[in-house]
Amino acid sequence: MAEAVRHDKTARQLRLLSDALDSGRLGPVRRLVNTLSPAEIGNLLESLPPGKRQVVWGLVDPEDDGEVLVHVGEEVRESLLADMDTDEIVAAVEDLDIDDLADLVEDLPDTVIDEVLKSMDRENRERLEQVLSYPEDTAGRLMNPDVVTVRADTTIDVVLRYLRLRGELPEHTDHLYVVSRRHQYLGRIALAALLTHEPGTAINKLIDDEQPAIDVGETAGEVARQFSDHDWISAPVVDDNNILLGRITIDDVVDIIREEAEHQALSAAGLDEDEDLFSPVRRAFRRRLIWLSVNLCTAFLAASVVGQFEDSIAKLVALAALMPIVAGMGGNAGTQVLALMIRGLALGQIGASNVGVLLRKELSVALINGLVLGIGLGLIVLIWFRQPGLSFVIGSALTINLLTAATGGVLVPITLKRLGFDPALAGGVILTTLTDVMGFLSFLGLATLILLR
Amino acid sequence: MAEAVRHDKTARQLRLLSDALDSGRLGPVRRLVNTLSPAEIGNLLESLPPGKRQVVWGLVDPEDDGEVLVHVGEEVRESLLADMDTDEIVAAVEDLDIDDLADLVEDLPDTVIDEVLKSMDRENRERLEQVLSYPEDTAGRLMNPDVVTVRADTTIDVVLRYLRLRGELPEHTDHLYVVSRRHQYLGRIALAALLTHEPGTAINKLIDDEQPAIDVGETAGEVARQFSDHDWISAPVVDDNNILLGRITIDDVVDIIREEAEHQALSAAGLDEDEDLFSPVRRAFRRRLIWLSVNLCTAFLAASVVGQFEDSIAKLVALAALMPIVAGMGGNAGTQVLALMIRGLALGQIGASNVGVLLRKELSVALINGLVLGIGLGLIVLIWFRQPGLSFVIGSALTINLLTAATGGVLVPITLKRLGFDPALAGGVILTTLTDVMGFLSFLGLATLILLR
Repeated sequence: MAEAVRHDKTARQLRLLSDALDSGRLGPVRRLVNTLSPAEIGNLLESLPPGKRQVVWGLVDPEDDGEVLVHVGEEVRESLLADMDTDEIVAAVEDLDIDDLADLVEDLPDTVIDEVLKSMDRENRERLEQVLSYPEDTAGRLMNPDVVTVRADTTIDVVLRYLRLRGELPEHTDHLYVVSRRHQYLGRIALAALLTHEPGTAINKLIDDEQPAIDVGETAGEVARQFSDHDWISAPVVDDNNILLGRITIDDVVDIIREEAEHQALSAAGLDEDEDLFSPVRRAFRRRLIWLSVNLCTAFLAASVVGQFEDSIAKLVALAALMPIVAGMGGNAGTQVLALMIRGLALGQIGASNVGVLLRKELSVALINGLVLGIGLGLIVLIWFRQPGLSFVIGSALTINLLTAATGGVLVPITLKRLGFDPALAGGVILTTLTDVMGFLSFLGLATLILLR
Repeated sequence: MAEAVRHDKTARQLRLLSDALDSGRLGPVRRLVNTLSPAEIGNLLESLPPGKRQVVWGLVDPEDDGEVLVHVGEEVRESLLADMDTDEIVAAVEDLDIDDLADLVEDLPDTVIDEVLKSMDRENRERLEQVLSYPEDTAGRLMNPDVVTVRADTTIDVVLRYLRLRGELPEHTDHLYVVSRRHQYLGRIALAALLTHEPGTAINKLIDDEQPAIDVGETAGEVARQFSDHDWISAPVVDDNNILLGRITIDDVVDIIREEAEHQALSAAGLDEDEDLFSPVRRAFRRRLIWLSVNLCTAFLAASVVGQFEDSIAKLVALAALMPIVAGMGGNAGTQVLALMIRGLALGQIGASNVGVLLRKELSVALINGLVLGIGLGLIVLIWFRQPGLSFVIGSALTINLLTAATGGVLVPITLKRLGFDPALAGGVILTTLTDVMGFLSFLGLATLILLR
C-alpha cells in the first residue's frame, strides 16, 4: 500500500518529535520542525494533541507561520490562531499570496483583518478585496491576480528585455498571457516557446488560443475537473467581458481534489472534512450526537417493524436470531451499489440515459447473488434448525432484500442528487434504513404467512 | 456541491450523445466526441453501456485512441482493446509518452507488445524497457526518461542557443536539469530564471539544488505526498548513484491522488477502483459474491450470539424488537471513529505516540454520547413498554456498545495496518461484527441477568 509509506515517513518524524518533546529538549524539536516544508509542518501539527501542538507551533519559524496556517484544516487553524496575538497574525499573513490570504481571511478575527488590510499597499488591498468579492468555492476565490501579461504586437526580444527588467515571475508561471489594450484575454504563450524560438519571432505567431479561459464564477469542482481533464499547470480566469482577472495554479487544484476526496470519505459517516483528529471532547461529542440521533430515529423505524411481529417471534424464537442476517446482508449489498453510484455521480457518468441499464444490471447481479446466497443460507439454516419451511423463508427473504438493496442503491443517490442533497452524506443512512426495514419485513412477514398461519 | 456541476456538464454531454446515438445519426456523435479532450472522452466511454460504448469508441479520432486508453480504468480499457486489431493498437500506442506506454503495456496482448517494440526506434525501445524494469507503483514506473539537461559550466546565452536549436521541450517542462559529465543530478534551473536573467549569466549561479531528487524505488504514494507537500510541478528521478534517469510530472501525480481516493472509497465496500460501472453481470456478481459471503459469515457469528439467548427472548419478546437498535447504533458510532482513523493513518498522523490520547478522547466522547443517548433511548422504551428495568438495560447496553465502538474504531484500523492489511478494506467488516456481537451480547446478557432471573 502506498499509504503505508507516507505513514512510515511522517510517523517516523512524529516519533522523533514526540521523543524530543517528552524529554523537554526544545532545541532539537525546533531544528527538526524547521527542516520541514509548511505543508509537512501543518500535517505534523494536525497529528499532535492540543498541549504538544501549542508547544511545537511556538517553535515554528515565524516566516513559515502564514504558509502553515494555509495548510491545516479549519478546526486546527482556529486552535493555532487562538494562540497568537494580533501583531503575530498580521506578521504571519501579510506576505502570503492573495489567493492564500483570501482563503484564511474568514477565519481571522475582524480586528486582525482590519490590521492586515491597513498593512497592505493599495494595489494588493484592492486585489484582496476583489478576490473576496467572489463567493467561496468559485474560481474567483481561487485565483491569484498576480499575472504576467504581454501584448501581441511585439517580439520575443522585447518580451525578454521586459522580463529581465521585471526580475522574478510569480510561482508556477508556465505561460505568459497575451492581452488586448483593454486587458481582454487573447491567448497564452508558453515559457518554453519563448526559449525555443529565435529572438526576432513575433509574439502573435506563438500565441496558443486553444486553451479556454476559466469563467470567474465557475465552481471549484468544475475548475478541478478541467485541470485534470486537460493536464493544465495553470489557467487564466476572466470575467463576463473576457477581461483577464487572474490565474489559477495546479497546486490549489490538488488541494481541491484532496478536500473533495476527504469530504466524500468523511461525510458518509456524518463528519466534516475539517474535523480535527484531536478536537476537544465537548465539541466532538455534540457533532457526533446529531448524527447518532438521526440514526437512532431510523433504528426505531426498523424496530417498530419487528414490533409488529412480536407474536410470530414468540411462537418461533429462531426468527429473532436469524432476522439480523437478512437485514445486514441487504445493507452490505446496498453499500456496494451505493459506492459505485456515488463515484459515478461525482464523475458525471450517470444520467437519465443510462440509469435504466444500470438498474437492470444491478438487479441481475442481485438476483443471481440472492439465489446463490439464498440457497447457501437456506442450507445452513436447515442444518441448524431442521425446519425446511424456515429455510425456504430465509432464502426468499434474502433474495427479496438483495433486490431491494440494488434498487435502492441505484435510485436513492440519484434521487438525492436530483433533490439537491449530497448523496455521500445521506445516501448510506437512507439505504440501510430501507434494507433494515425491508429485511425484517420480508423475513418476518414471509415467516408469519408461510410458517405460522 | 462542486460535484453537482461536473455532473451537470458531463451529464449534458452524455444526454446529447445519447440522443444522437439513439437517433442513429453518427455524424453529430463523431463531431461531439472529437471536441473533447482524451480524458473527457475516457470519462464519457466509462459512462456508456457496452453496446453504445463500442459504437462511440469506433468514432473517436484514431490519433486520440492511445491517450483515451491511458485515461480509462483497467476494466473499461480491456473492453476497448478487445474491439481493436493488432495494427490499430500499435498505431494507437506508438506515439504515447514512455510513461503512459509503460502504464498500458501490461494490459496489451503479448503479440501486440512485440509489434509495438518493433515499431519503436532503438532509443525509445531501450527507454521503455528501462521503465518497465521497475516495479509497478514506484517512481521508476511513473517517470518519463525524456528530460532536457544542461551542464553547469556554461551561460544562459549558450543554453538559449541550444534550446532554439533543439526546438520543442517535453510537456510540462518547468525546469532544466543540470548534470555532471557522468550524468549525475546536480540541481535544476527554472525556465523563469533563464528568462529573467541577463544572457551572460553563468548557469551555476542559477542552480537551485534545494529540491531533493526522487529515488527511483520510491513508492507512488510517497511521490504524491512529496509533490503535494512541496507544490512541485515536476521532479527529477535518480538511481542509487544519483544518476538522472527521468522526470515525474504533476499530471501523473494528480492521477495517483484520484486513484488513491477512489481506492479508499470503494474498498470499504469490497470493490476495486478499476471496477467498470457497466461490467458484465457474470463478472460483477462473482466479485460481489465473495464480499457478501465474508459478510454472511460474520452475520452468522452475530446470529449465534442471539441464539444463545433464545430462552430470554421467548420470555420477553420485546428484546427482539429492541436488540437491533443497540447493535446498529454501535455500528454507526464505530464507523465515525473508523473514518477519522483511516484518514489519519493515510496522512501518517497516527503513531504510537498519540494512540493513547486518541483512545482517551474517543472513549470520553463515547461515554458522554452513551449517557445522553442511553437516557433518551431508555425514556422512549419506558413510554413504549412501561418496564423501567428494560429501560435501564437498554440504556446501559447502548453505553457499553458505544464504548466498544470507540475502542474498536481506534484499535482495529491501527492493528490492521500494523499487520500489513488495508484498514480501508477490512476495517468496516471487522468493526461492525464487533459492535453487532457486543450489542447483542450486552443487551441480551444484561436483560437475562437483571430482568429474567
